[in-house]
Amino acid sequence: MNPDFKKFYAHRTRLMRVSEIRTILRVIEEKGVISFAGGLPDPNLFPKKELSEIASYVIREYGNAALQYSVTRGVTLFRKSLSYFMSTKGINVPPDNILVTTGSQQALDLIARALIDPGDIIAVELPTYLAALNAFRMSEPEFIGIPIDDKGMRVDILEEKLRELSSRGKKVKMVYTVPTAQNPSGVTMSQDRRKHLLELAEQYDFLIIEDDPYSHFLFEPIEFKHLKAMDGTGRVIYLSTFSKILAPGLRIGWVAAHEDIIAILERAKQNLDLHTPTLSQYIAMEAIKRGVVERYIPIMRETYKRKRNVMLDALEDHFPPGCRWTKPVGGMFIFAYLPESIDTKEMLLKAIDAGVAYVPGRAFFVDGSGWNTMRLNFSFPSEDKIIEGVKILGRVIREELKSKGS
Amino acid sequence: MNPDFKKFYAHRTRLMRVSEIRTILRVIEEKGVISFAGGLPDPNLFPKKELSEIASYVIREYGNAALQYSVTRGVTLFRKSLSYFMSTKGINVPPDNILVTTGSQQALDLIARALIDPGDIIAVELPTYLAALNAFRMSEPEFIGIPIDDKGMRVDILEEKLRELSSRGKKVKMVYTVPTAQNPSGVTMSQDRRKHLLELAEQYDFLIIEDDPYSHFLFEPIEFKHLKAMDGTGRVIYLSTFSKILAPGLRIGWVAAHEDIIAILERAKQNLDLHTPTLSQYIAMEAIKRGVVERYIPIMRETYKRKRNVMLDALEDHFPPGCRWTKPVGGMFIFAYLPESIDTKEMLLKAIDAGVAYVPGRAFFVDGSGWNTMRLNFSFPSEDKIIEGVKILGRVIREELKSKGS
Repeated sequence: MNPDFKKFYAHRTRLMRVSEIRTILRVIEEKGVISFAGGLPDPNLFPKKELSEIASYVIREYGNAALQYSVTRGVTLFRKSLSYFMSTKGINVPPDNILVTTGSQQALDLIARALIDPGDIIAVELPTYLAALNAFRMSEPEFIGIPIDDKGMRVDILEEKLRELSSRGKKVKMVYTVPTAQNPSGVTMSQDRRKHLLELAEQYDFLIIEDDPYSHFLFEPIEFKHLKAMDGTGRVIYLSTFSKILAPGLRIGWVAAHEDIIAILERAKQNLDLHTPTLSQYIAMEAIKRGVVERYIPIMRETYKRKRNVMLDALEDHFPPGCRWTKPVGGMFIFAYLPESIDTKEMLLKAIDAGVAYVPGRAFFVDGSGWNTMRLNFSFPSEDKIIEGVKILGRVIREELKSKGS
Repeated sequence: MNPDFKKFYAHRTRLMRVSEIRTILRVIEEKGVISFAGGLPDPNLFPKKELSEIASYVIREYGNAALQYSVTRGVTLFRKSLSYFMSTKGINVPPDNILVTTGSQQALDLIARALIDPGDIIAVELPTYLAALNAFRMSEPEFIGIPIDDKGMRVDILEEKLRELSSRGKKVKMVYTVPTAQNPSGVTMSQDRRKHLLELAEQYDFLIIEDDPYSHFLFEPIEFKHLKAMDGTGRVIYLSTFSKILAPGLRIGWVAAHEDIIAILERAKQNLDLHTPTLSQYIAMEAIKRGVVERYIPIMRETYKRKRNVMLDALEDHFPPGCRWTKPVGGMFIFAYLPESIDTKEMLLKAIDAGVAYVPGRAFFVDGSGWNTMRLNFSFPSEDKIIEGVKILGRVIREELKSKGS
């Protein structure tokens, strides 16, 4: 007879939240519903022809290295191209201050392991990227939530909290932010607030995690500098990824930070997976070198802008009164607020039955709010499916409102 | 002025040991010495032509999926081919009991996170694979070391320890073993001991981690079954990898285990890196399908057998009296025991200066012994370099012995 294996689980497994997104994705895959749930790029935009040729080339020409083990920090030549690539965004970081990670998710996990102790206070946006919360939770921090508006994080409210905490002898260890085309809301932090945030980091002695997967997908002309580009003292830990601008299947992300931070994250990574797949690094490097990334970004941006517009129009047409939503200036998501009588988690199964999926918003809020919110992805579905899906969702919401008697 | 970033480190960073191997590898890369240090496959044996064609093909034909995000457990079709691949080794596990990992190292890390609590007792071989120890250490277990001889782990001694612990109300939570062509010693556990180990697992209620990267590289005809093949109740967690039989640069490993164990490891993996690179999974899958793995294994085995023989002969010729070493029946390593006056860690810098590197053996022992041992890799260097390197190393040892006055 099989033993009860659950008794072998470590106590910390109670900290492991199943990602709502990944659970939903599995259901969707099985049922074939219209999905606004994931954060998947449009696969029609993958540069398949170019990557097919590049993959073949790097194995043929550099196979002895590209198929072999490599150093934990990342292939040296690749870190040089990343350094160059970041310089085109105004961020100047030498290759030695870069750590290549197995997707950006690993960077979040490394930060949790190497920099967060139980009880450390981390400030995050309300709402914020839920997979970051799940990664950080493994180190049992305390979260404080800072509201956002259409100019990003309310840095003035952060300052109040810092002052109040300070008066109680407490301090914030790090602020996690997705300042540009935020996930899940699509808003971008104004330049004034960015400066203010950096000043507060000095004054109150905390680190800033700048998570930047979406800054290449800005649909409106917005003046801003990356936090890392204005980082005089090395307090900003910058994260980015090729998942959105090239192909998530490669699992290539990176961290740019002060050398002491890179060193400790590198040491943690040794135990995790030795190093990021060498072949993926060579493919991404060659894609930068050949200008594939540069050529495709404008195409992706235009496509996603069009899809955003289609979804905004569809929401206007089909969602009932009492609903509101963000008008994202970039990224892949619209975040919707429904009437407060609705619990979007409760409504999800009905929506899936009706043929459409979304991510209930509550998991993006560290303060227990957001039960009436949802994240809607517009990068993956086709324009037709966006219209059809929003129409269905509008009907589901109306029925839900009716059943609640409101 | 830059702040002191070290004050932001989490307390657990003190648990992070820098892998001696990876530090040495970096020095070697810079200095160009003959390296017996890594565990690198011979890059001349990578099926470059085939993999170049396969990589191009899977992106061309399956690019929409192969370049996209995929499920945490691993690409379903790939888990089916892994299930088939394992059946050729006598291990019958359905695809749903398989989790694809980012190299075998990640499997060790997942086990540490999901199954090990501080103070849990883990029994390991003396010596054992040091990167497993480093991964497990992050969860602060207590290790007990079980000696090996040329028939593998002394399971009789394990039984004594289990009895003794049991009499004090304590128990072993898991036994970690590399039963076949062990790292670092190259020995293989006899069939009798394997059966005995499984009986003890039932009697004393523990899990067995069977780490199996090398069983395709057995140079002598040895009769044995994999522990997982004899596992009636699901107590064996089987780990393997494509790093040695195809290409480490893909970072493809996997775990085969009871469904409850797979479920909890999968949940932990979500936070780590979402999923293993999809492209690597498609490449490995196609390499199995086309018979590339099957065709290359015998070529690799013959090459490594020849290199092992060259190293054994060179040791006989050049190492001074008072040294002994294992006669590996498989794998990639010979483990040498020098006279006890020698500290191989202390001697390493002299060896590197003289032009040859190895891994000091102490890190493979959990009981503080092994200061006079070293691990020698024979898969990576050419036959000429093996002879030259052992010759140099013999000279360094003689000088060291002279300086110690013995």
